[in-house]
Amino acid sequence: MATNLYDLSYELQNALRESDEYKNLLALYDTVNKDESASKLFANFRDIQVKLQQKQMSGQEITQEEVEQAQKAAALVQQNEKIAKLMEAEQRMSMLIADLNKIIMKPLEELYGPMGN
Amino acid sequence: MATNLYDLSYELQNALRESDEYKNLLALYDTVNKDESASKLFANFRDIQVKLQQKQMSGQEITQEEVEQAQKAAALVQQNEKIAKLMEAEQRMSMLIADLNKIIMKPLEELYGPMGN
Ligand SMILES: [Ca+2]
Ligand SMILES: [Ca+2]
Repeated sequence: MATNLYDLSYELQNALRESDEYKNLLALYDTVNKDESASKLFANFRDIQVKLQQKQMSGQEITQEEVEQAQKAAALVQQNEKIAKLMEAEQRMSMLIADLNKIIMKPLEELYGPMGN
Repeated sequence: MATNLYDLSYELQNALRESDEYKNLLALYDTVNKDESASKLFANFRDIQVKLQQKQMSGQEITQEEVEQAQKAAALVQQNEKIAKLMEAEQRMSMLIADLNKIIMKPLEELYGPMGN
């Protein structure tokens, strides 16, 4: 039976790769990567985000200066049309993935209740 | 295209529900639930785990007393054969789910790199 689960998971991998949502995300990513200033802006924004997340997850204090730096980077990034479009596509992809996960994991949710194990 | 993703996700949900791994987990859960003392022991262990996780995630300090309480509960639970079997099945299910997730999410991993977005 587990084989069937793996087969279906590979089918889902292919369907995801062939989906309009994924192709659109790839294209928008490409557009940003080919624009040097957008690419640098976005990489800087991501770096700041990742560092803040890591600090948060390890329970470290986040300084006022870091919050302001993150807000500035987010504002800059939102002003760039290419990045703004990419981030919207990323958000739609996240929502799609969350939807699919909810469907797939339903049997476990039934077992453990909505709070997960 | 997104329809196909949803269809496949529902197929995967059904395959998971019909899998030996899931049925085995259900049966072991049932065995524990029908044994009053095992059921209480397990519920107590889960409560302690959840509380510690919530404290950890919110960055609160975990006291030495709490660590000892969790260790005692874990030791008690491991001595109960029914619970030990259930926990092994849960761990196998977690590994299976992690495997499937890795397969399904491969296209996004390729896009963002192994560290996720
Ligand atoms: Ca917009
Ligand atoms: Ca064992």
